[in-house]
Amino acid sequence: MSGNTFGTLYCVTSFGESHGPAYGGVVDGCPPGLALSAEDLQKELDRRKPGTSRHVTQRREADRVEILSGVYEGRTTGTPIGFLVRNEDQRSKDYSAIADKFRPGHADYTYWRKYGVRDPRGGGRASARETLVRVAAGAIAKKWLAERYGVSVRGYLAELGTIRIPFQSYDVVDANPFFAPSLDIVPRLEAFMDELREAGDSVGARVDVVATGVPAGWGEPVYGRLDADLAAAMMSINAVKGVEIGAGFAAVAQRGSEHGDEMTPEGFLGNNNGGVLGGISTGQDIRVSIALKPTSSIRIARRTIDVRGEPVTVQTTGRHDPCVGIRATPIAEAMLACVLMDHALRHRAQCADVAPPVGRKT
Amino acid sequence: MSGNTFGTLYCVTSFGESHGPAYGGVVDGCPPGLALSAEDLQKELDRRKPGTSRHVTQRREADRVEILSGVYEGRTTGTPIGFLVRNEDQRSKDYSAIADKFRPGHADYTYWRKYGVRDPRGGGRASARETLVRVAAGAIAKKWLAERYGVSVRGYLAELGTIRIPFQSYDVVDANPFFAPSLDIVPRLEAFMDELREAGDSVGARVDVVATGVPAGWGEPVYGRLDADLAAAMMSINAVKGVEIGAGFAAVAQRGSEHGDEMTPEGFLGNNNGGVLGGISTGQDIRVSIALKPTSSIRIARRTIDVRGEPVTVQTTGRHDPCVGIRATPIAEAMLACVLMDHALRHRAQCADVAPPVGRKT
Amino acid sequence: MSGNTFGTLYCVTSFGESHGPAYGGVVDGCPPGLALSAEDLQKELDRRKPGTSRHVTQRREADRVEILSGVYEGRTTGTPIGFLVRNEDQRSKDYSAIADKFRPGHADYTYWRKYGVRDPRGGGRASARETLVRVAAGAIAKKWLAERYGVSVRGYLAELGTIRIPFQSYDVVDANPFFAPSLDIVPRLEAFMDELREAGDSVGARVDVVATGVPAGWGEPVYGRLDADLAAAMMSINAVKGVEIGAGFAAVAQRGSEHGDEMTPEGFLGNNNGGVLGGISTGQDIRVSIALKPTSSIRIARRTIDVRGEPVTVQTTGRHDPCVGIRATPIAEAMLACVLMDHALRHRAQCADVAPPVGRKT
Amino acid sequence: MSGNTFGTLYCVTSFGESHGPAYGGVVDGCPPGLALSAEDLQKELDRRKPGTSRHVTQRREADRVEILSGVYEGRTTGTPIGFLVRNEDQRSKDYSAIADKFRPGHADYTYWRKYGVRDPRGGGRASARETLVRVAAGAIAKKWLAERYGVSVRGYLAELGTIRIPFQSYDVVDANPFFAPSLDIVPRLEAFMDELREAGDSVGARVDVVATGVPAGWGEPVYGRLDADLAAAMMSINAVKGVEIGAGFAAVAQRGSEHGDEMTPEGFLGNNNGGVLGGISTGQDIRVSIALKPTSSIRIARRTIDVRGEPVTVQTTGRHDPCVGIRATPIAEAMLACVLMDHALRHRAQCADVAPPVGRKT
Repeated sequence: MSGNTFGTLYCVTSFGESHGPAYGGVVDGCPPGLALSAEDLQKELDRRKPGTSRHVTQRREADRVEILSGVYEGRTTGTPIGFLVRNEDQRSKDYSAIADKFRPGHADYTYWRKYGVRDPRGGGRASARETLVRVAAGAIAKKWLAERYGVSVRGYLAELGTIRIPFQSYDVVDANPFFAPSLDIVPRLEAFMDELREAGDSVGARVDVVATGVPAGWGEPVYGRLDADLAAAMMSINAVKGVEIGAGFAAVAQRGSEHGDEMTPEGFLGNNNGGVLGGISTGQDIRVSIALKPTSSIRIARRTIDVRGEPVTVQTTGRHDPCVGIRATPIAEAMLACVLMDHALRHRAQCADVAPPVGRKT
Repeated sequence: MSGNTFGTLYCVTSFGESHGPAYGGVVDGCPPGLALSAEDLQKELDRRKPGTSRHVTQRREADRVEILSGVYEGRTTGTPIGFLVRNEDQRSKDYSAIADKFRPGHADYTYWRKYGVRDPRGGGRASARETLVRVAAGAIAKKWLAERYGVSVRGYLAELGTIRIPFQSYDVVDANPFFAPSLDIVPRLEAFMDELREAGDSVGARVDVVATGVPAGWGEPVYGRLDADLAAAMMSINAVKGVEIGAGFAAVAQRGSEHGDEMTPEGFLGNNNGGVLGGISTGQDIRVSIALKPTSSIRIARRTIDVRGEPVTVQTTGRHDPCVGIRATPIAEAMLACVLMDHALRHRAQCADVAPPVGRKT
Repeated sequence: MSGNTFGTLYCVTSFGESHGPAYGGVVDGCPPGLALSAEDLQKELDRRKPGTSRHVTQRREADRVEILSGVYEGRTTGTPIGFLVRNEDQRSKDYSAIADKFRPGHADYTYWRKYGVRDPRGGGRASARETLVRVAAGAIAKKWLAERYGVSVRGYLAELGTIRIPFQSYDVVDANPFFAPSLDIVPRLEAFMDELREAGDSVGARVDVVATGVPAGWGEPVYGRLDADLAAAMMSINAVKGVEIGAGFAAVAQRGSEHGDEMTPEGFLGNNNGGVLGGISTGQDIRVSIALKPTSSIRIARRTIDVRGEPVTVQTTGRHDPCVGIRATPIAEAMLACVLMDHALRHRAQCADVAPPVGRKT
Repeated sequence: MSGNTFGTLYCVTSFGESHGPAYGGVVDGCPPGLALSAEDLQKELDRRKPGTSRHVTQRREADRVEILSGVYEGRTTGTPIGFLVRNEDQRSKDYSAIADKFRPGHADYTYWRKYGVRDPRGGGRASARETLVRVAAGAIAKKWLAERYGVSVRGYLAELGTIRIPFQSYDVVDANPFFAPSLDIVPRLEAFMDELREAGDSVGARVDVVATGVPAGWGEPVYGRLDADLAAAMMSINAVKGVEIGAGFAAVAQRGSEHGDEMTPEGFLGNNNGGVLGGISTGQDIRVSIALKPTSSIRIARRTIDVRGEPVTVQTTGRHDPCVGIRATPIAEAMLACVLMDHALRHRAQCADVAPPVGRKT
């Protein structure tokens, strides 16, 4: 399996660099008959689009997506869905100052070490702009999951630096530029971001994503577990350094009598397991939390080396998100949706003939 | 790719149930010429063996491994290495009391929902005993990584419940039943475990694993990243609910000026990134941390349902680890080693002809 | 995907060498609930067993298969099915004469060139004995296909050297040691084989396999076509040098007006396409034909080189099939069954919700 | 692995329909540093372009390819190479007459049965026009194989209907519209094709492809064999019904003393095995032969059914190749090159450290 494809049956292949001609993707394995238009993808892409507030990169991209195949008369045909987003606002000049040296915490060093060559413009392949492929693929998965299984996939910003964001409602998540599930906290987040921008620094974030309506039974133990595939999908998002399912690291300090979610005929009494037991969905909400590191491109001068190995300092003056986590919510939702759809298909392949257990109430 | 195989080029396939005739595995893709004997696998298996202290399950298994193929005159031939561990101490009677009901936090419920049937004896396929396949496969990977690249893979127990274990030295890790990197803490751990066993309860743990000597360049962005594959591998271990690379969730509160590891001609000045940037190894130590939930099989009575959906209580009286994290260190090391070996092979496939950068000092 | 695993959802992993301790396999992805016992596998293994007539290798092996996992109380559980066949009659001494030189047409040369080392005993991994893993995996697939879809998979010897074998009936195929579909021809085949053995030579063969009852719709264009996967599966059988679907090479000389199978409401009027159009099954019989080359181990002296590159002559005196094609029928059936089962699962994953076309009669 | 991706390390993903906006592909896994421009792909695409002679479809397409990613300053970077070919001459009206009925021998019936829906315009996804993706991917593989290993991949038309084409020279293959390796035969081929077009019929063909310079050792027994992967790749080409390696079906009638290629210190004395033994390359020429069936779209009226299952007749009046085999040579070459490159990468992943055998002369 190639490094730029993920999924076993719902397969997403991605290509593109930040300052090349375009990004694009191929979604293979989508069932036929799903109503689909470019607008379905565009809606999700617009959620992650740069330039929507002063708190994210000011790069101006229309990010218009074009569907190139796999849809006929408004419905998927079962053949691969190719799509394309042209790059527009490329301003390569912004990056000339850093073409020869490595930003601490940035992938430009490792790409150079791996491939012996790299496209230095805007992060090249390592740019967070690649995530628009994920978002487009996730839009298809979200739609299918909702229509076929009634599954909804949502997320929100849970922490911004040291600020914990209380959960009030999913309804307000799209009504503020942070994807915060609370409007009350927004002024505080804005003040924090303004101060950060002033300081020329960046900060990390935590994003939570939740899938509701997932039936019990999705996931393939013992290596193709639902949670293992989720962990890979989330960790593959730029800047992610940690993934939790359910209680996550809080489980370390829990006792078994506290952690194990009791069951009643009406359902589970808790969700420490995040909707996954033994790698298989329980029928509860799937809960995933991710940690995003602070952006490495900052205005503060830092020690580094250049391509000759000489000590230099570097500071980045281009248009960068001071917190990549702010725009990560639609991306994490997309990855969750893609993994769920993959496992929905895998599950029915093997277990389509399994009769629902007799007498089951939950 | 099947759910019980992992790896792209160093592929591990696993089979077996806790109370079936045997566990076994197939390692495919190992380079030819590696000196290998059953003893190499046995050494690692003995580290995770049950019954070695009063703090782990008292199940008595010799866990003798037999190599069935792929080795000729003491060296690997490049063909698949099959191996087998017979189950011995199966005591199915221990489990009769729970055959009809579901332990809170246990996979028996989800297996039943997925497959409509399950082997209730000892957790069946969901038993942590499956991890011996990983440990055997990891033993081969460790050996090859050490001989070919000088990579060493080590781990330790970092937290046991609420007790944080200070790191003193790798040297003592195998000298205590907890894989603690400090002997001073051992009495406290023992007291804690004794109290826990007394209470009939269980507890979570955190395990850290570290690979030293990994060259820069391993990993395939953007989905087949080294950290993404590590996340999947770790999350696929029984009871794991969280994975961190480097700073992990601490990165949420960090500023970019703090998180991004500065570089000098002598190397990096920190390792917040855990040895991975942009999904590719940096040449630093690879650092992974995992959260293991408390065992679900406890003596404390809990509310649950039975296979008919009726409310019942359940308590487990068999031989169970009160903390699966205690024996998790060799398992997490094994998964780290397998993923690294897979990426070593993948890297040289694509980049064997990349010349080392001119003038590089680090 | 490792070289010793095949299948996307019905995955077969194989290990073992001719003179190692054992052969074994892992079948992953089998749906739960299938009634299965070792006897089901044994029945098929006995069909390909050596030593059953004077026309095949006189190696004496009981070839008793043991199921190690994945079956509980007589039914598959959905977890991997591990199985093992111990080697018994190994007689390594037979092979000492050829350990240093290469048989023309044999894989011992290429294994040595690839891996730098090889197990010279009995062909090592390249031995046709590996096919017992395929036959065991195929036995499970055959059973499931028959029970779930009413598919039957059968084959027969179509040509033995220059002798074309007329098709009379499937009923007699298992009633003669050649898997010939005609009993009348058997004396001629026996005479031919006796003469061949006398001459110390070997000969090629053609085997046809047919699947009846396959529904329309299986196959994933454009690369994961049903016929493409069949071609790979068949070509992976030892000694196979050619694969045809339907008319095969006869299609070269056909006109479109002759080749294209006309359709009526009652069905197709021909089957030049062998049951596959555009990589997808048509609902007709799937027809595959394979060419097997003559065995390379013969008693006639031949020119070759040794491991030092020196010219030598070689002749093989061990117990070898003078025509590997004779025992190939159950093997080709098994590969056909495995590929069909894989595609049955893949098809229902993607297309489970496709409603049968309105008004369809065929 | 998705049905529209092939390869393990050199991975090709394809999308597009005959009358949709575009075809495109993603090549992942190409080593960095290869000099590459759109012109490299264009050169090969022009070889398979329609409309180049009166003997192939008169569809007029510029088939201009655009590289969208993976190349920076004229060299591959190791990241995925996306490319696109816009469809231009789509004339959907040509196909309205056959939107409701099925051409005998055409995939429109099976797509409809599989997916419940299909794009009827020009064969949709089943159009042979998809092969331009293969040709583009193959152009990259050819270039890398030539530069890195000195491998050359060439092919020619070996039979056109009942006409066997004598091999004279590769030099003339690109100098005639049939890819015939002999110019003397061209007038006869032209007369035959004119007569065929007159009759409104079509015919099959045989194409041979050969790779020279392939080192010994490529291929992964026992399922990922070089010949097995070649068989799948070739059979996945539209209209292919048979694949042979080396002697192919002629091996059926051969004796072992004739078929097994003898070896001397100077090399092999024959190539019945087509350069592959035990699934591994021998160092000889790789020889593959394929059978292509006659085009199903012909002007002769034929019996068929419509989407309601009613009996109708169908005749196709659009612009179709009367022999798809004529343009198949560049396609088969491309598939051979892709498979070889994949195996080159796979081989050096596992066996990079294998020392050349001591004393080897061949």
